[in-house]
Amino acid sequence: MTTKQEAAEAVLAAKTRLGLSWAQLAETLDAPLAWTTSALLGQHPVPAELAAKAAQVLELNTDAEAALRLQPTRGALDDVVPTDPTIYRFYEVLQVYGPTIKELIHEQFGDGIMSAINFKLDVSRREDPGGERVVVTMDGKFLKYQWG
Amino acid sequence: MTTKQEAAEAVLAAKTRLGLSWAQLAETLDAPLAWTTSALLGQHPVPAELAAKAAQVLELNTDAEAALRLQPTRGALDDVVPTDPTIYRFYEVLQVYGPTIKELIHEQFGDGIMSAINFKLDVSRREDPGGERVVVTMDGKFLKYQWG
Amino acid sequence: MTTKQEAAEAVLAAKTRLGLSWAQLAETLDAPLAWTTSALLGQHPVPAELAAKAAQVLELNTDAEAALRLQPTRGALDDVVPTDPTIYRFYEVLQVYGPTIKELIHEQFGDGIMSAINFKLDVSRREDPGGERVVVTMDGKFLKYQWG
Amino acid sequence: MTTKQEAAEAVLAAKTRLGLSWAQLAETLDAPLAWTTSALLGQHPVPAELAAKAAQVLELNTDAEAALRLQPTRGALDDVVPTDPTIYRFYEVLQVYGPTIKELIHEQFGDGIMSAINFKLDVSRREDPGGERVVVTMDGKFLKYQWG
Amino acid sequence: MTTKQEAAEAVLAAKTRLGLSWAQLAETLDAPLAWTTSALLGQHPVPAELAAKAAQVLELNTDAEAALRLQPTRGALDDVVPTDPTIYRFYEVLQVYGPTIKELIHEQFGDGIMSAINFKLDVSRREDPGGERVVVTMDGKFLKYQWG
Amino acid sequence: MTTKQEAAEAVLAAKTRLGLSWAQLAETLDAPLAWTTSALLGQHPVPAELAAKAAQVLELNTDAEAALRLQPTRGALDDVVPTDPTIYRFYEVLQVYGPTIKELIHEQFGDGIMSAINFKLDVSRREDPGGERVVVTMDGKFLKYQWG
Amino acid sequence: MTTKQEAAEAVLAAKTRLGLSWAQLAETLDAPLAWTTSALLGQHPVPAELAAKAAQVLELNTDAEAALRLQPTRGALDDVVPTDPTIYRFYEVLQVYGPTIKELIHEQFGDGIMSAINFKLDVSRREDPGGERVVVTMDGKFLKYQWG
Amino acid sequence: MTTKQEAAEAVLAAKTRLGLSWAQLAETLDAPLAWTTSALLGQHPVPAELAAKAAQVLELNTDAEAALRLQPTRGALDDVVPTDPTIYRFYEVLQVYGPTIKELIHEQFGDGIMSAINFKLDVSRREDPGGERVVVTMDGKFLKYQWG
Amino acid sequence: MTTKQEAAEAVLAAKTRLGLSWAQLAETLDAPLAWTTSALLGQHPVPAELAAKAAQVLELNTDAEAALRLQPTRGALDDVVPTDPTIYRFYEVLQVYGPTIKELIHEQFGDGIMSAINFKLDVSRREDPGGERVVVTMDGKFLKYQWG
Amino acid sequence: MTTKQEAAEAVLAAKTRLGLSWAQLAETLDAPLAWTTSALLGQHPVPAELAAKAAQVLELNTDAEAALRLQPTRGALDDVVPTDPTIYRFYEVLQVYGPTIKELIHEQFGDGIMSAINFKLDVSRREDPGGERVVVTMDGKFLKYQWG
Repeated sequence: MTTKQEAAEAVLAAKTRLGLSWAQLAETLDAPLAWTTSALLGQHPVPAELAAKAAQVLELNTDAEAALRLQPTRGALDDVVPTDPTIYRFYEVLQVYGPTIKELIHEQFGDGIMSAINFKLDVSRREDPGGERVVVTMDGKFLKYQWG
Repeated sequence: MTTKQEAAEAVLAAKTRLGLSWAQLAETLDAPLAWTTSALLGQHPVPAELAAKAAQVLELNTDAEAALRLQPTRGALDDVVPTDPTIYRFYEVLQVYGPTIKELIHEQFGDGIMSAINFKLDVSRREDPGGERVVVTMDGKFLKYQWG
Repeated sequence: MTTKQEAAEAVLAAKTRLGLSWAQLAETLDAPLAWTTSALLGQHPVPAELAAKAAQVLELNTDAEAALRLQPTRGALDDVVPTDPTIYRFYEVLQVYGPTIKELIHEQFGDGIMSAINFKLDVSRREDPGGERVVVTMDGKFLKYQWG
Repeated sequence: MTTKQEAAEAVLAAKTRLGLSWAQLAETLDAPLAWTTSALLGQHPVPAELAAKAAQVLELNTDAEAALRLQPTRGALDDVVPTDPTIYRFYEVLQVYGPTIKELIHEQFGDGIMSAINFKLDVSRREDPGGERVVVTMDGKFLKYQWG
Repeated sequence: MTTKQEAAEAVLAAKTRLGLSWAQLAETLDAPLAWTTSALLGQHPVPAELAAKAAQVLELNTDAEAALRLQPTRGALDDVVPTDPTIYRFYEVLQVYGPTIKELIHEQFGDGIMSAINFKLDVSRREDPGGERVVVTMDGKFLKYQWG
Repeated sequence: MTTKQEAAEAVLAAKTRLGLSWAQLAETLDAPLAWTTSALLGQHPVPAELAAKAAQVLELNTDAEAALRLQPTRGALDDVVPTDPTIYRFYEVLQVYGPTIKELIHEQFGDGIMSAINFKLDVSRREDPGGERVVVTMDGKFLKYQWG
Repeated sequence: MTTKQEAAEAVLAAKTRLGLSWAQLAETLDAPLAWTTSALLGQHPVPAELAAKAAQVLELNTDAEAALRLQPTRGALDDVVPTDPTIYRFYEVLQVYGPTIKELIHEQFGDGIMSAINFKLDVSRREDPGGERVVVTMDGKFLKYQWG
Repeated sequence: MTTKQEAAEAVLAAKTRLGLSWAQLAETLDAPLAWTTSALLGQHPVPAELAAKAAQVLELNTDAEAALRLQPTRGALDDVVPTDPTIYRFYEVLQVYGPTIKELIHEQFGDGIMSAINFKLDVSRREDPGGERVVVTMDGKFLKYQWG
Repeated sequence: MTTKQEAAEAVLAAKTRLGLSWAQLAETLDAPLAWTTSALLGQHPVPAELAAKAAQVLELNTDAEAALRLQPTRGALDDVVPTDPTIYRFYEVLQVYGPTIKELIHEQFGDGIMSAINFKLDVSRREDPGGERVVVTMDGKFLKYQWG
Repeated sequence: MTTKQEAAEAVLAAKTRLGLSWAQLAETLDAPLAWTTSALLGQHPVPAELAAKAAQVLELNTDAEAALRLQPTRGALDDVVPTDPTIYRFYEVLQVYGPTIKELIHEQFGDGIMSAINFKLDVSRREDPGGERVVVTMDGKFLKYQWG
């Protein structure tokens, strides 16, 4: 059985070999960019129709295609504190601004959380006189603490 | 000497006692909402003029006002993996979507990172038919890996 | 300012001194048993009216009453792996049955989670020929993984 | 020798290939649903007769069948704090409600624990106006602290 | 409120000041030696009558006596791997002989565990030509894995 | 070169295949039960004569026999806190009773430790009206702290 | 697909086999010494032209050459605290002088950091009457904390 | 007895109150800048004469002055991985460039290390068209691995 | 009750105030140098007569003297990996030479260990043309692995 | 490429097969005993001439011989706290006597460390009426803390 991790590696290899971008793959699948990326990296089950499309464009074998459809056990970081600088900066944001985000969610919504399940993510580029900027938007349903 | 941590506790106590919101404090300081919150929680040095305004509206003593102005040693989480559910969800986003964010930054910008220093954060509320949503926007300068 | 932790200690001391049970406190507050217990132990903000009732019956001072109303930073275990045997058994259940629970949630509901926010808990006693049994029921809304 | 972990992977692969559900497997084995799931995932030794039935319906080879019968070394989580969101929520329940469960067990039963050995687990679905709910029931014998 | 930890320190101080041994305290309480020691060190709730006797002979105040009666949150080691050599040797026994003990319990009893709740402990001295020996006996009820 | 770990796995496979018990193996080797078990599991070097006997009865090849004779690097637990419930209970005993054992060793012997090297272990079964009991006896030479 | 780790191992093997030094490789690539070393060790993506030159001089196959060009997931230490003495000394410098460096950066530049992205590194040798000295120079752009 | 940590806090408080810079303190002590900073922060014993000068200019009491002279137990980071971004970047340098530094030291010097004891550190500012830069120079004696 | 830790701090303060060396204290107690140091630092119980002598020469009060006599819970390092460079080097020796020491003990003595209980330690100074050298001698009884 | 770890395993296998001792190998190489052992275990680079001699007497292939010559990344323990009892005792010595060694080094030499680089180690056997003793001597150059 091909694992989702092995399928993700096959995706990355094919993507590089074929010169495809995530944006092109998302367009092919007619799915959101960040969802497409995380699903092909193994963090979401891919619906059968999309898995078939992905397998076709990425020239994956049927085992890899089947693996894309599997339910994942999620969690993609090898270390509790990530070592890759591009990923670490978001951990640093949590260290510096975590309690700020918590205060503002509670002030604006009351006691509860931003869902990471009913959730979408976007990464985009913004031009600015001071240099181009990375804009990451996290958009999750507010879940109020309620007793059943 | 009052520490920044003690000053943050004094801010929280005064804010509760006086019935002030972070939004009101940000307006008083004429500063961005999330910056105001994190600065008063001790994660940024507060410029003298703003520290004076904050001390006045929050009825802080001069020691606490001085502490607000100090350079912080940043890092606000007691545990490497945060236990509070409101904060944890952002760690979960990192576990599930960290490599996705990394892939998309590299695809859109090349080799580099989103700065967490030249950086701004916003937490806002969006109404949606499916229920209100928390929208967290992280906006940081792209820093390209370059050798000196 | 009295912290929620100090208020919880005051609750426990008063409860022992006055010979009250959690069941009696829950009845006084007209609130679910497990919610009452966890809220008075500092894991939930207590609404003003209930905090007043709790303060009256437990003879708490106004600082402790105010602390009960505060928004908590949740997380009650001192160690990542709990050392107390009564609590540890639930960690062991997670070690032995975690993947089982995951499989069955996915089989019965699809890709998603049991909410720990829109959630209620019950601890009850069941007589059995083989000896009395502890029955813990966790009842949380199913949250489907959905992209925004 | 096939390990229990390898047998569990063979079970999962066969279950997917043959389109079987845990419910069907439990019915085939005439055993409780959650027990069947955890036993086939390698957390319990499977009695010879049931292992034979499981091997037949899942078309496992005799090595895998033998592995199902082995005594396990239990513990199914790769990380001390689980990263998969579906499993993590139960760890969060422990963080937020662990001391509550402890207080209520002691109030209702005296000094002791809920057994995780003489124990059964159920995962079920409850329809609710607010959306379907996951109900996890843990039912373990009360074990009183007693000296020999 | 005096904590169980503070009561344990008061017990140790009084025991040293009054020149009492654990054996004498166990005799006074008419209770097993190891139970008496662990209970006075704060790992068991002490029944009212015994707490009164202990308080009398150790000249403890009523707050400490009340603390002895409290339900403990158990777990006495400051570090996951104990540093004190006398205690460490038992951790080493677990490292070297843990799987051996597991194999022999399963061979002699089937799938299950030795209870650490319905359990008694004894530490005694045995003379031997090769020098005196420490004999620690752990005696716990066998708990068979059974599904409810 | 066959490692001691691989030899232990070969022992377990052969023992299951041939339907042998640890008790039978101990009898064959004319060696204590727990020693035999831990030695064949790789935690002790097996003297040449006994390794030959073990290899014969377990039908091991000469590489495995050689491995049994090797000096081990001891330590059999994969995790600092063991996850298997049968082994964990002994860690729990250490958490709850560690300081008790220390106090009683010091009271009965003075400053020193129970040796885990000049040491023997026994696991036996005791019938009791309340149900059968596991009795684990640790018997180690007392080593007095002495300066050279 | 050859990983960057495997490519790095191929580089080291070829470098040893061919008797090349990092200085010669840097000269061949016409790139800074430390950049060349870290890039060939897998911590930077190597531009196509340089990867081709490196592959030629090191006689690497095209898979390894392709791996050199890949975007890395950075982080080269196996342990959080490095065990190799040559690397550990720099961790020790951080333990002893970390707060000193922080104080001096803030005194000389204000609130901000030294970039580790817009950054260059040099390792050189300085003769000294007391013996030759290692001089490591870290040169990173100052990044001022600024809100967007 | 005043600890070195308390003396360091007194130094920081006085430095802020009196408006002194580390550069001015280094000039007063006629000592290198980074040495002065780390010594006054408690990481080096301060010679009597310099401690007296520091106490005078910083208006410290004699207890603090005595503490400055004490031999320290070194190590200034609260967490194994530092959370403060200014300090973290140097840990990141170690993660990304540690093996590079090791390779180059061995290539230029042979088997050995850069001493962190016979060592000096400098933090300086360099103007650059691309923006001002932080230059940290570590200069330590090469210590060759040699057997006695 | 004065703890052994507080007594150790009182010893260090008095030693500094009175200008005494460990060598002088050892001579006063007529005890080995390293034993005296570790005992006064709280790692050994001090016999009554020596505690009295130590209290006299160090002008300790009777509480501190009593604390010196107490049985310690040993273990003096705050961190699992020590941060102080003087202590760390011995951990490094263990990292680099641990298996070497193990091999040589087994080659010279058979299966067993060097006792750390029946053990003495010496730290001395040796002049050498290449500079003075620290010589640390660990001398412990060989304990053969033997079964009871 | 053969790694140093694989070469060490080949050394151990050959040493066992050929019945050689470390003492004989040290004699063959005309090198100190402990150096020979640690070098052949992969913790030191072996000079070409000695690697050739070792390869000849141990009948190693040229890949293993080449590996012996490689520069190692040092650090031989799999766990931060070693589990093997023979090695652990030295960690225990550090826990119990670490601060003692530090005090005595500072008293006899001033502020500095024992080098673990300019360092030699010896393990020897001493007969004693109370039983044979392991004597481990660590002899390292004193390195004075000095600023460049």
